[in-house]
Amino acid sequence: MDKVNLAQKFSLFTEAYKPKIVGELNDSYVKLVKFHGDFMWHHHDNEDELFLVLKGRLRIKVREGGRERELVIHPGEFIIIPRGVEHFPTTDEEAHVMLLEPKTTLNTGNLQNDRTVAELERI
Amino acid sequence: MDKVNLAQKFSLFTEAYKPKIVGELNDSYVKLVKFHGDFMWHHHDNEDELFLVLKGRLRIKVREGGRERELVIHPGEFIIIPRGVEHFPTTDEEAHVMLLEPKTTLNTGNLQNDRTVAELERI
Repeated sequence: MDKVNLAQKFSLFTEAYKPKIVGELNDSYVKLVKFHGDFMWHHHDNEDELFLVLKGRLRIKVREGGRERELVIHPGEFIIIPRGVEHFPTTDEEAHVMLLEPKTTLNTGNLQNDRTVAELERI
Repeated sequence: MDKVNLAQKFSLFTEAYKPKIVGELNDSYVKLVKFHGDFMWHHHDNEDELFLVLKGRLRIKVREGGRERELVIHPGEFIIIPRGVEHFPTTDEEAHVMLLEPKTTLNTGNLQNDRTVAELERI
């Protein structure tokens, strides 16, 4: 058991959209991700996801009840995307984000493609 | 679904050691707590707890293998206390902490006393 310094962990990697595991509790992982540019529309059938922004600005488009809107998340703010909700993360510049989600969560949700990271690195 | 600004939520209450619910995902709550002074030795039989420090300095004494040590957690750092581990949070000055823990978690863990908060306020 030891503490985790988020800035120190973010200094250990550069690639965008490659989540790293930095902790686990109960059935969930704590992950760090660098977001940069567009990700893709996807959803998670069985998992709610928490996005806590630590640096930069994260924009998440969401579709609810057939309508689309955009949430803009700044450092010191978080959003919880409930299971089933289609979402599209994007950033204009690099953003540092802490994720909290069940261990079963795949980064691309219902999709499997060249951006899927099935085996996550622990740092 | 809306974002949560942590500083804004912390501005809504003053009491120490009265956790407030600010989000829920999967089987867990996101809670905010102001720590000030000593809490107490306790443990949680079935729940791992994450403490992310946002302001101030949190000291957590832990007992592992019959030995006691102290972890000092600064803003931008978190610690996960696994189930079963005896811990004693304390601060010299007020600290702002985000907790993530299963909905079943009682703030005083295995103890029930005048500092137990059975019904948490949502803010």
